[in-house]
Amino acid sequence: MVPRLAATSSDELDLIRINTIRMLAVDAVQQSNSGHPGMPMDSASMAYVLWTRHLRFNPRNPGWPNRDRFVLSAGHGSMLLYSLLHLTGYDLSLDDIRNFRQWGSRTPGHPEYGHTAGVEVTTGPLGQGFSHAVGMAIAEAHLAARYNRPGHQVVENRTYVIASDGDFMEGVASEAASLAGHLKLGRLVVLYSDNRITIEGSTDLAFTEDVGDRFRAYDWHVQRVDGNSIAEVDEAIRKANAETTRPSLIVARTHIGYGSPNRQDTSKAHGEPLGDEETRLTKENLGWPLEPAFYIPDEALQFFREAVGRGAALESEWEAAFANYAGEYPELAADLRGRLEGRVLPEGWDAEIPQFPAGPGLATRAASGKVLNSIAKRVPALVGGSADLAGSNNTHLDGESDLQAESMAGRNMRFGVREHAMGAVLNGMALSKAFIPYGGTFLVFSDFMKPAIRLAALMRQHVVYVFTHDSIGLGEDGPTHQPIEQLASLRSIPNVLVIRPSDANETAEAWRVAASHTGGPVALVLTRQKVATVDRTALGAASGLANGAYVLREAEGGTPDVILIGTGSEVHVALGAAETLASSGVKARVVSMPSWELFDRQPANYRESVLPSSVTARVSVEAAAGFGWERYVGSRGRTVSMAGFGASAPIEDLVREFGFTAENVASVAKEVLAGS
Amino acid sequence: MVPRLAATSSDELDLIRINTIRMLAVDAVQQSNSGHPGMPMDSASMAYVLWTRHLRFNPRNPGWPNRDRFVLSAGHGSMLLYSLLHLTGYDLSLDDIRNFRQWGSRTPGHPEYGHTAGVEVTTGPLGQGFSHAVGMAIAEAHLAARYNRPGHQVVENRTYVIASDGDFMEGVASEAASLAGHLKLGRLVVLYSDNRITIEGSTDLAFTEDVGDRFRAYDWHVQRVDGNSIAEVDEAIRKANAETTRPSLIVARTHIGYGSPNRQDTSKAHGEPLGDEETRLTKENLGWPLEPAFYIPDEALQFFREAVGRGAALESEWEAAFANYAGEYPELAADLRGRLEGRVLPEGWDAEIPQFPAGPGLATRAASGKVLNSIAKRVPALVGGSADLAGSNNTHLDGESDLQAESMAGRNMRFGVREHAMGAVLNGMALSKAFIPYGGTFLVFSDFMKPAIRLAALMRQHVVYVFTHDSIGLGEDGPTHQPIEQLASLRSIPNVLVIRPSDANETAEAWRVAASHTGGPVALVLTRQKVATVDRTALGAASGLANGAYVLREAEGGTPDVILIGTGSEVHVALGAAETLASSGVKARVVSMPSWELFDRQPANYRESVLPSSVTARVSVEAAAGFGWERYVGSRGRTVSMAGFGASAPIEDLVREFGFTAENVASVAKEVLAGS
Repeated sequence: MVPRLAATSSDELDLIRINTIRMLAVDAVQQSNSGHPGMPMDSASMAYVLWTRHLRFNPRNPGWPNRDRFVLSAGHGSMLLYSLLHLTGYDLSLDDIRNFRQWGSRTPGHPEYGHTAGVEVTTGPLGQGFSHAVGMAIAEAHLAARYNRPGHQVVENRTYVIASDGDFMEGVASEAASLAGHLKLGRLVVLYSDNRITIEGSTDLAFTEDVGDRFRAYDWHVQRVDGNSIAEVDEAIRKANAETTRPSLIVARTHIGYGSPNRQDTSKAHGEPLGDEETRLTKENLGWPLEPAFYIPDEALQFFREAVGRGAALESEWEAAFANYAGEYPELAADLRGRLEGRVLPEGWDAEIPQFPAGPGLATRAASGKVLNSIAKRVPALVGGSADLAGSNNTHLDGESDLQAESMAGRNMRFGVREHAMGAVLNGMALSKAFIPYGGTFLVFSDFMKPAIRLAALMRQHVVYVFTHDSIGLGEDGPTHQPIEQLASLRSIPNVLVIRPSDANETAEAWRVAASHTGGPVALVLTRQKVATVDRTALGAASGLANGAYVLREAEGGTPDVILIGTGSEVHVALGAAETLASSGVKARVVSMPSWELFDRQPANYRESVLPSSVTARVSVEAAAGFGWERYVGSRGRTVSMAGFGASAPIEDLVREFGFTAENVASVAKEVLAGS
Repeated sequence: MVPRLAATSSDELDLIRINTIRMLAVDAVQQSNSGHPGMPMDSASMAYVLWTRHLRFNPRNPGWPNRDRFVLSAGHGSMLLYSLLHLTGYDLSLDDIRNFRQWGSRTPGHPEYGHTAGVEVTTGPLGQGFSHAVGMAIAEAHLAARYNRPGHQVVENRTYVIASDGDFMEGVASEAASLAGHLKLGRLVVLYSDNRITIEGSTDLAFTEDVGDRFRAYDWHVQRVDGNSIAEVDEAIRKANAETTRPSLIVARTHIGYGSPNRQDTSKAHGEPLGDEETRLTKENLGWPLEPAFYIPDEALQFFREAVGRGAALESEWEAAFANYAGEYPELAADLRGRLEGRVLPEGWDAEIPQFPAGPGLATRAASGKVLNSIAKRVPALVGGSADLAGSNNTHLDGESDLQAESMAGRNMRFGVREHAMGAVLNGMALSKAFIPYGGTFLVFSDFMKPAIRLAALMRQHVVYVFTHDSIGLGEDGPTHQPIEQLASLRSIPNVLVIRPSDANETAEAWRVAASHTGGPVALVLTRQKVATVDRTALGAASGLANGAYVLREAEGGTPDVILIGTGSEVHVALGAAETLASSGVKARVVSMPSWELFDRQPANYRESVLPSSVTARVSVEAAAGFGWERYVGSRGRTVSMAGFGASAPIEDLVREFGFTAENVASVAKEVLAGS
């Protein structure tokens, strides 16, 4: 027999619906014997108010472009989101919820973008969801500024976040919050579940700052409410929505594990199932039927499912408005529609990519700047900037204005010295599908944004990183600024495409690949120093870059004694070494290998044609840690690489002292040959 | 002829001395044609006041333990520090300054710890110096609380920082500032050079928050001054020193490139030499002799050099006070002296490390907790904690109190969800030599603290990381929490020792190595899940861990057909595979390889004895990216590894689906043998 909950007032009805969210979470965590019940229990009220009164979405078309975005930054509370998705009619069944955290289910431990309809972003690593949301809000504001016209607000959505104290302890969130305040992101609304409990215990153990005051210092609009008060939360969201020139933080006092007699307000509620007994006590305490588990009162379901009709209506209205807009602004509308659907590369996007004449020298970062500009002219989706190194990273778009609070349609972003937030914001923008966002910093500082790069890879987002100053070649700034292990670190991340071009024309090819790549982010790794633009009439074509590695210089007679493999600036060292070797009768092939990932995905016969297994005398040259190069040089080969950190000195001293000279590479090649 | 600057008032004298600092920086940057003149020019006044009126140091003994610490967080302004070091009589000559940024000089582009006397910490990556300083202040406060006695303030120094807007844009600084406020670090004083210029231009481009208000929200004592006003700066430092229960931030309005007629207050002053003409104009503007370069007025030098006598007196006084203390508290004094001199492992420190009986299972993180506690009992220098995961990381020291504002002598640190600040704080503590600081988080979140790990490696600091939940073996939390590329990433950093023990007894050996290691940080990589404690009577001794890799299970008859190499939990998979292979007549050796770095430094004959070059059929098993394993398995070998990200499911499903089973490894081994 199905139990019934009797409600006699609208307040009681609200409570039943809220407890429906809570209890689904409790039961799912209990069933899987794994997960985090405390957060869904504490935030169910807020989420209820938000999802049933404010959030504009269409459960039957989760990709409706003008939907509000909801980001559960506290991703460990995934069951809160799954409960809402199921209840409001997304494609997530009760069976999916019963299979919480099981192999192949659509309800993984933390929300995963691309895995579950309605999940806007992968969250779990704290601070990231919030910071990604800043990027989402920027994306909206930019598109609105660029495409809306008087009377035609075709881009008009908000970004709502539920975040936790853990989110606000993380530095990336501080960076992103400061940037959001600077950009006056009035359509970003953050509900902070201030439950005062962390995994180790009370937040008093480590976190006694005043978060609200801190956000005021960032120029946010800050309110404080009781997170269980429907009226207060509702009113606060209304005020936040009405505040258009500042992002809003709603500090909501909540109670982790709300309703659990023995676990509420304790860290034990955070990360483990309540257990049979406490589940029973909690249900009793909240007046909830003990059986069945996963109980959803009919009335609650009907009420939540009104979102389906409401969503369909919202989308229809928007489509009608869009049609009006298209009538008046057909080109703009076509352009916008294309971007909203992810068609970011118009016909002929690469027509102006320059060919660089052979010559004595152009840093690949400088070539990158020219190529980026040549593409950006035809690709409005290319929007980005640098973490305060635009001039050094050559990321500035000529003739474009800054993206600032007063000019959100600008395309040159100013991230400040905030690499990590930059990474997260780029992801947030990419998730809209309407951008190829790019961001620059020195390669060594890719470390600061690694967690965001990883999320781009995990979500397979199309983001381009412009990492310049890519080796000891940067010279005098010394070891703190000289990347060593960063190439290995980036290459080891699944789904990241790393490209280190050797000259201007390879850089052009690298951008061609980067702009059209799918399946993950692309890291362009570029020199500070000038490198020769090699003469392609005598050498392999730069288009070989698309294959990851190619024969740049064939050995005399076509049968190499030794293969020299270089990347980036060290390709030139390898070319020099080949000439040196030639003068002593050793025939060397030079392979330019700008991208391991691209090469590894080539057919075996192509790979064999570049690196014939018969030629085991191989030397790689890369001014970075040699970590991993055994894959290509094999057991007999050698790597000319950095054994430790760099040093502060002019480049010519560094390349000599660390052995990145034609002479040294030639001599290593001879050792390999002699040792055979 | 040597010029003379005539001063008729004490104000003028101050100005001449300040300009001495400025002009040394200008000339050095000019001479090397590389560097950052703007910051030394803007902060020379503040630094002058601090160094001549407040900072307590002994130039002739830079290691005097009770010295105040000075941290130039804005490390690009290195010439400010080098000027001060030379002028006050440290072992840094004018020739060293003339060789700024040259190969082999003691004046590298950014200050490098261990490279230049008087440089307390390597700085340059923004936000780090400030965050390391928080660790230094914690170290002082802990030692003071632990060792001082009424009337005997033998530990009593301050930590002073000069930081820039770039420092405060970085998230790591936000984390550290919040922690510093929480811990009420009253002896930390930070001068913020608020010059309102970043590399890209005005801070208005990206950084419009109110830093002072933000720090008030962290519970800091905040003052605002004119950075060029000696009186205001002096007074503010006095007040900051008088404030004992809150860290102090002095927001000092400064002018980048101060004195340069055409570059002051412009971003052009930041990172390039002034050039001949502007140098001339600047000197004229400040009333400075045009010749010679590197001019130091005698009076100025004499004044600055008074630091030598003052420093000697300070140290003598302290030694006298210490002798009194030692008379009254001989044991305490001996203990403290040992720690201040870096003798952190007392005789018998490892006497209580447990031997674990063979048995069905203990997670290596659990074993680690026991071993850590067994050492900590005898090693008071072991102080640390976790980024809010103490229970999961097993980092808690039993019977020890928390390190909190009210109990700074406590040894259990609560870092909050601030991995990056944790990394920086650990470094700051290690720099005192009096600690073996340790910090725990999940392995995947090592990403968040990578830049701090890199600095530990660069400075070769003895820090121990306790990274648990080291693979898909963590199960249901899914891909955001499952490390894949982190092992490769850590292994690729120079000077980092990575150890992934396979059972409880290897974990004991790992801690033995970690506690006594020198030359860099140690990362312990530990399972969430239980693993068997293997029976060492039948297998190789766990002491083999110290060699990085050893034969755990010899092949039947001693001549292996194939070598299976495992790390951590996958060693057990390899053992299972060896049994499976044995049943089909294939003789497999199992090598446990907990540490690549330790193995790679063994003599060739040892390495050959473990991995004989004659046995080319090799399979590695590690539930992580296979990146780099070619080094050990060679061209013929195979790696059983993670090709992409993980998934959310119970561990038994994950190991089966991703192939970490004895059956799969045995089958791969057979494929290798068949393919030969």
